[in-house]
Amino acid sequence: MENNFDEIFMREALCEAIMARDIDEVPVGAVIVRDGKVIARAHNTRESDKNALCHAEIKAINDACSALGGWRLVGCTLYVTLEPCPMCAGAIINSRVERVVFGAHDFKAGAFGSMINLNDYPLFKPECTGGVLGDECASLLTEFFKTKRNK
Amino acid sequence: MENNFDEIFMREALCEAIMARDIDEVPVGAVIVRDGKVIARAHNTRESDKNALCHAEIKAINDACSALGGWRLVGCTLYVTLEPCPMCAGAIINSRVERVVFGAHDFKAGAFGSMINLNDYPLFKPECTGGVLGDECASLLTEFFKTKRNK
Repeated sequence: MENNFDEIFMREALCEAIMARDIDEVPVGAVIVRDGKVIARAHNTRESDKNALCHAEIKAINDACSALGGWRLVGCTLYVTLEPCPMCAGAIINSRVERVVFGAHDFKAGAFGSMINLNDYPLFKPECTGGVLGDECASLLTEFFKTKRNK
Repeated sequence: MENNFDEIFMREALCEAIMARDIDEVPVGAVIVRDGKVIARAHNTRESDKNALCHAEIKAINDACSALGGWRLVGCTLYVTLEPCPMCAGAIINSRVERVVFGAHDFKAGAFGSMINLNDYPLFKPECTGGVLGDECASLLTEFFKTKRNK
């Protein structure tokens, strides 16, 4: 049953990733869920916002802190279409997100097992599930970069 | 000569850390310098802003991106009183800050050599100098936590 919910919310994150692609941003999307409800959703806008912090996860965590009125995102699950980078994995840890579900693995910069695993260190450890709708999440990225190269 | 400048700008970061302490926040401060000028300054406001992202470095990077009008902080040095955590070290790497100078080492969560070294991984590598005014930066933190315990 958990898997079904995971796919449902990963589809929400995929919708955000498509919104990023449609404004010519690297297509990564995220949603944060608490008690079965989406409390924050965001997509990568690094280029349009001219800001290195504007990864999907950071923006979603920012909005979730506002929504909950505190820095601890207790009881929250973050869904993201690409394995978080060290900045985003660190933000997930700092904000005490209890569970992270990601789609595609990022072998170049993924910080929950692919390049490095921050859960190997003496820090708060979110539960972590990778590969949910992994092929769809990865295809969105490979298609985006293929189109960019052919432009 | 570099050392003199480093101490001058670390004193600016220390001023920010004192501003954090004075509002009962963990005293960490940061400034970002380009061409010898401070272009962004910030201190930790996690509790008052109720936001896990509000570390000094993240806020300074956010403001520096605005000041420079782009996500690449080319030619910038970030001074921070405490060794960056994984979130902040990741943000420094993502924003292409060329040089990081920190004061106190953070043996519990420091991500530029103490707990982990993100410069050991195949990512953008900022030049890194630790221990500048290290004792002053560390004292500010130990005094803060001592006062908290005695309250």
